[in-house]
Amino acid sequence: MIATMLGLFKEKNNKPLKVGRVYLDHASATPILPEVMSAMMPYFTESFGNPGSIHSEGMIAKSAVLHARTTVARMLSVQPESVTFTSGGTESNNLGIIGVVEAKHQSGLPYNQIEIITTKIEHPATSKTFEYLGSMGVVVNFAPVDGGGEIILSELAALFTPRTLLVSVAYVNSEIGVIQDIGAISRVIAKFSKQLSILGATETGVIPGVQTKLDDLYTLYGEDNFEQNNKEVRRLRSSEIYLHVDAAQAPLWLPCELSRLGCDLLSLDAGKFGGPKGVGALVHLKRVPLVPISFGGGQEVGLRPGTESVASIVGFANAFLIAQKNWTENSAKVGALQQYFYTQLSKNIPTAIINGVVGEARVVNNINISIPGIDSEFAVVTLDVAGIAISTKSACSSAGGGASTVVQTITSDTARASTTLRFSFGAKTTKAEIDTALSALKKHIDSILNV
Amino acid sequence: MIATMLGLFKEKNNKPLKVGRVYLDHASATPILPEVMSAMMPYFTESFGNPGSIHSEGMIAKSAVLHARTTVARMLSVQPESVTFTSGGTESNNLGIIGVVEAKHQSGLPYNQIEIITTKIEHPATSKTFEYLGSMGVVVNFAPVDGGGEIILSELAALFTPRTLLVSVAYVNSEIGVIQDIGAISRVIAKFSKQLSILGATETGVIPGVQTKLDDLYTLYGEDNFEQNNKEVRRLRSSEIYLHVDAAQAPLWLPCELSRLGCDLLSLDAGKFGGPKGVGALVHLKRVPLVPISFGGGQEVGLRPGTESVASIVGFANAFLIAQKNWTENSAKVGALQQYFYTQLSKNIPTAIINGVVGEARVVNNINISIPGIDSEFAVVTLDVAGIAISTKSACSSAGGGASTVVQTITSDTARASTTLRFSFGAKTTKAEIDTALSALKKHIDSILNV
Repeated sequence: MIATMLGLFKEKNNKPLKVGRVYLDHASATPILPEVMSAMMPYFTESFGNPGSIHSEGMIAKSAVLHARTTVARMLSVQPESVTFTSGGTESNNLGIIGVVEAKHQSGLPYNQIEIITTKIEHPATSKTFEYLGSMGVVVNFAPVDGGGEIILSELAALFTPRTLLVSVAYVNSEIGVIQDIGAISRVIAKFSKQLSILGATETGVIPGVQTKLDDLYTLYGEDNFEQNNKEVRRLRSSEIYLHVDAAQAPLWLPCELSRLGCDLLSLDAGKFGGPKGVGALVHLKRVPLVPISFGGGQEVGLRPGTESVASIVGFANAFLIAQKNWTENSAKVGALQQYFYTQLSKNIPTAIINGVVGEARVVNNINISIPGIDSEFAVVTLDVAGIAISTKSACSSAGGGASTVVQTITSDTARASTTLRFSFGAKTTKAEIDTALSALKKHIDSILNV
Repeated sequence: MIATMLGLFKEKNNKPLKVGRVYLDHASATPILPEVMSAMMPYFTESFGNPGSIHSEGMIAKSAVLHARTTVARMLSVQPESVTFTSGGTESNNLGIIGVVEAKHQSGLPYNQIEIITTKIEHPATSKTFEYLGSMGVVVNFAPVDGGGEIILSELAALFTPRTLLVSVAYVNSEIGVIQDIGAISRVIAKFSKQLSILGATETGVIPGVQTKLDDLYTLYGEDNFEQNNKEVRRLRSSEIYLHVDAAQAPLWLPCELSRLGCDLLSLDAGKFGGPKGVGALVHLKRVPLVPISFGGGQEVGLRPGTESVASIVGFANAFLIAQKNWTENSAKVGALQQYFYTQLSKNIPTAIINGVVGEARVVNNINISIPGIDSEFAVVTLDVAGIAISTKSACSSAGGGASTVVQTITSDTARASTTLRFSFGAKTTKAEIDTALSALKKHIDSILNV
């Protein structure tokens, strides 16, 4: 069936799909917003200069990149020079993670004396990067996650050693939508750093229960005063452990300011929040030592060479601005849809099991279910023919086929991990679309299971 | 003056420059062709899917990338899987060069037993990559170039040792437009490889004047039967030395088929041939061992991770097709303009000295001159105010200011290297535009030198 469709599309390559498609795969790719496209257009056409040129064409391009950088920086409450534009989320993650490790390595530390903490439910853009670093000798430790996908904070603390350089986790998991409590992770790092500094940063290990000024701070601000608390906590942290957050799935639905989160590095990808594909950003605080991982011209303050992709960068900034301005409103709206989906699902397909946490700690636009007995790829293709786009897991993991590593990790249930379906909504998704999708899914399940 | 202009453009960010600009900086950036923009548009808007998704939106995107890859492959007479799309020329060069070195290194060879041959007039995207590899221990040897910028082939041969892994040179120099004789370089590699295989690939060195089947081939095909000759020569070469060519400046003016050139790896950048910025390709033959230099999803046959930048890739393929279909015609047309420029230059500005070779071995769209006594940045800015865009050297080298490394290398004349001006034409450049540019330049020179 796939082959037939592919044949069709090869023939009618440029023809759009017929209207009325129900697209519920926004975690894989978002349509570009018309206003973002309009903002980009001049930089494809009349303002096509190279930002490295000193004539007017070059300066207009340079000014556009500068303006984009400032816009993104302002939304994230960082300095413009903290924003490095890249070719997408994958490159941002590679630069953020390898860049920090290489900076440390080049300062004289062997790879095998560098430790990283991450989880086993990360996106390939980070997990494969850790695999590479592991092959170089870097020690990669995995923080355990619970059945909902949340990092078990009490067990995270035990993974820190004086050799820990970096903690890297996704803000929002691309498959099951779990939101990690970045602020809490930042506080664990801070607490460990403080203990370490009291111990004189020796390799003696950690004294449990050491009371520090940090604890007073917690008492002072309380868990409720989230933002201010995290800012102070980060300020007090040792400058030796960095927190990297892959925020690819977050900008449409959650706040992303680094001070509010309490992280040091943040990866973004415009193709996931209404901007163009092929452009991302790595945001990093000045205190983070970072070296480039590719070599060439001195663009992006020497951190990322290559002629700036001006139109894409303009698109990134515009889409990011819109996403972050509207996240509260969109989140409320789409959160209601998510509730509606849950209700309709339990009514119509009671055999479906939800994967990942339900509630506050899940991003509003993600639903991930397993339905015992189904072939999930067959289900996706059947729904596609019925005009509905959903996915089995993340697009970047899909090429290989097979079960979901994420669901396997959190449930240890292979049957469940092999029967996953992911629905991811956009700001314009409607109840009617959810009805259509669930009705088609119910029909499919009935047809295969009742035969 | 620059600051004033920048202020102006910040105010009027999206306003195009007034019509009638004379843009003679096509080596820095080319305007995107309208038909290329049209081909890209659907993949920004209705066909926005992720090529990794198995639903229709994903398949349309996947099919577009496949079609683009096949188009480029066909123009270069290679297999589609030889074409890896990247974020631009810089990434292509990094992947081609570091990818080959890392593949060798990972097979067990220490960096300091790997040798590379390049020149001292390369673009930063390759020269900085060699600098990085040098810092890792790789031995980088520089083939001498003559006063015109051409590699001295007789001296190139002496640089080969049994440890030579890679030769990397630009097809067309971005500053002085010299075209390297890639076929001749390929034959030098072939001759050395053959001698090496006769010697049993020991470290004994090279026996001068060894007669091989290759020499018979030269006799058989002759230098005139260029294409067939190079194909055979490459076939006979040892599989241990690879030839990488940065062809960023070539597609509009020269043939780029790998078999015709006799190279194994080729780097391209769409922003230099009428396509969008932020997309490039590395083309490599199957026989070249290559490992990825960034990590993530399995896109681009595992060689380059990250969601494919679909619209940009479609733009690349369309622009490349147009460039390579029209290079002969454009080359003839713009070659005549180059002659006209030379004539008018010597008539009007007799003090100007041409940098780089003149004649067949220079790309038709490049003129690089030095004018004793001028401040080249001031000249560029003055011409800009008069409505003319030219450059001092390559945009990627410009940020740092200072003299041209390329002209310094070929002339050993610092005064000359500090007074360079580069004019680079497009297919639509006219004689009238050249007249305007030269007249403004003459006026500027008279005003500063006659005071």
